[in-house]
Amino acid sequence: MKGQILNALRECGGYLSGETLSQQLGISRVSIWKHIHSLKRDGYAIEASPKGYRLVSSPDLLLPCEFPDLEQRIHYFPEIGSTMDAARELAKKGAGEGTIVIAEVQTLGRGRLSREWLSPQGGIYFTIILRPRISPVYAPRINLMAAIAVAATIRKLFGLKAELKWPNDVLIEGKKVCGILAEMDAEMDVVNFVNVGIGINGNNPVSRFEKTATSLKDALGREISRKEFLTALITEIQRRQPLLMKADLLKEWKRLSATLNKEVRVMSLGEEVMGQAIDIDTTGALILKGKDGSLRSILAGDCIHLRE
Amino acid sequence: MKGQILNALRECGGYLSGETLSQQLGISRVSIWKHIHSLKRDGYAIEASPKGYRLVSSPDLLLPCEFPDLEQRIHYFPEIGSTMDAARELAKKGAGEGTIVIAEVQTLGRGRLSREWLSPQGGIYFTIILRPRISPVYAPRINLMAAIAVAATIRKLFGLKAELKWPNDVLIEGKKVCGILAEMDAEMDVVNFVNVGIGINGNNPVSRFEKTATSLKDALGREISRKEFLTALITEIQRRQPLLMKADLLKEWKRLSATLNKEVRVMSLGEEVMGQAIDIDTTGALILKGKDGSLRSILAGDCIHLRE
Repeated sequence: MKGQILNALRECGGYLSGETLSQQLGISRVSIWKHIHSLKRDGYAIEASPKGYRLVSSPDLLLPCEFPDLEQRIHYFPEIGSTMDAARELAKKGAGEGTIVIAEVQTLGRGRLSREWLSPQGGIYFTIILRPRISPVYAPRINLMAAIAVAATIRKLFGLKAELKWPNDVLIEGKKVCGILAEMDAEMDVVNFVNVGIGINGNNPVSRFEKTATSLKDALGREISRKEFLTALITEIQRRQPLLMKADLLKEWKRLSATLNKEVRVMSLGEEVMGQAIDIDTTGALILKGKDGSLRSILAGDCIHLRE
Repeated sequence: MKGQILNALRECGGYLSGETLSQQLGISRVSIWKHIHSLKRDGYAIEASPKGYRLVSSPDLLLPCEFPDLEQRIHYFPEIGSTMDAARELAKKGAGEGTIVIAEVQTLGRGRLSREWLSPQGGIYFTIILRPRISPVYAPRINLMAAIAVAATIRKLFGLKAELKWPNDVLIEGKKVCGILAEMDAEMDVVNFVNVGIGINGNNPVSRFEKTATSLKDALGREISRKEFLTALITEIQRRQPLLMKADLLKEWKRLSATLNKEVRVMSLGEEVMGQAIDIDTTGALILKGKDGSLRSILAGDCIHLRE
């Protein structure tokens, strides 16, 4: 409801009376007043005068009310250990497909294999709960889907040439702008849920010592609207969900891939494999061609691009 | 410690003084007395006389003290909803490899795909937490391993020709005596834990209306020692853990398999496939040969044996 009030105030642009809001949204004027009060507490500057309410300014926060279509499904935290942990708890308790946990800051953000993922103010950190009825063997396709959605959003909104590094990093000019972590809970027959955590370097500073990372702000030379980005990204994810098990998903990944045709080194569960990345298979595994021409598929791992 | 006291009393066969027990186990006589008291509360009849303590009778329960080597790792419940749920909670909190949850009765026992698994008194119901460092793609091998261990235990202890039905049922004369359910928590790279739930029809009654099920008691014509069975089974599981990713595991499964070479019908995520079961692959998938000679691998599902 707060999202709808915000929308109405933004569309109006000037003063909107409590009476009009009340009629438009079908709730009492007292309810309107309470929601306005709550928005003020969230950091929105809303002027109240005899002419009505007027939105003066909005905080730069990814509050649920900024996403009116998703508001009911968003769990928002100014600061949290990890959105993955919160999402897991929610998923265990039965939270539905499409539930989203957003945090402004993560104090214990993590990447693949329990690595640290720095999550200072200004980035975009969220986990989305997905419940596809697929075999766990195909779960890595969800990773691919999420990476495609991030790259597509960056290309659409900013015209930057975002590319994918297998399995699920998003690069701009060879530097990582987004990391993705998927955790699943499954029987051998079927996935129960897959939580996809996406961390995007948005307006947050990226260490100058970190030569392999970049942010959208650094790549564009200006700050981005995190709300606009997240709204577009969720749309891109949702649009691709029905395509999860279709060949088109793999085609799109290949089109955006920076890994294919490169010589790569992959570390996978303690083992190191080198070769030319020539394809991915239906489970999302990378197919490497060794110097002797032998083919090998790698299910998951850390991939380093060596050369074309 | 209670397990060690029980062991000592059993080995002695007659009276064992508190003094001797105290010296043998390196704890005070007061501690001995407390443990004896606790054993009595558990249902053990222990006579205390000036000559010492004597074990008169033991309850037919799978109490941790009956498994002295595993005592520390066993979580025991006279009655529980599901050992899977308890094990999941424990695993999330970091419970180590080999932690075991045992219940005499499950009120909400479940099998694959949330099906009910009747768990009345007399059966053997437990979940073991495993933490192999493998890709989730290979997790179904854990199912195979568990099924092999159950069949091997039945063959060793009772000489019954236990066989395996893909993916992980154990049959005696074509009737199901054991069901296995594995649930995993994983990243795309690596399994975090796999909880393997094993439900065995031991001395519990099996419905006469259930033509496809049997119990060890019915197959043998006498009651079994559940303690002996569970001890042997855990040993068989532990013995095979280092073999999880070895070819020998698949060979052993094939040797025990009742599915291979049969015409089968498999229902898998709403799809039905028929063919001759000719092999399993390295991920545990069943390879079916269709009438037109085409091969197809099935990752998981319900398998019905049609004929040789």
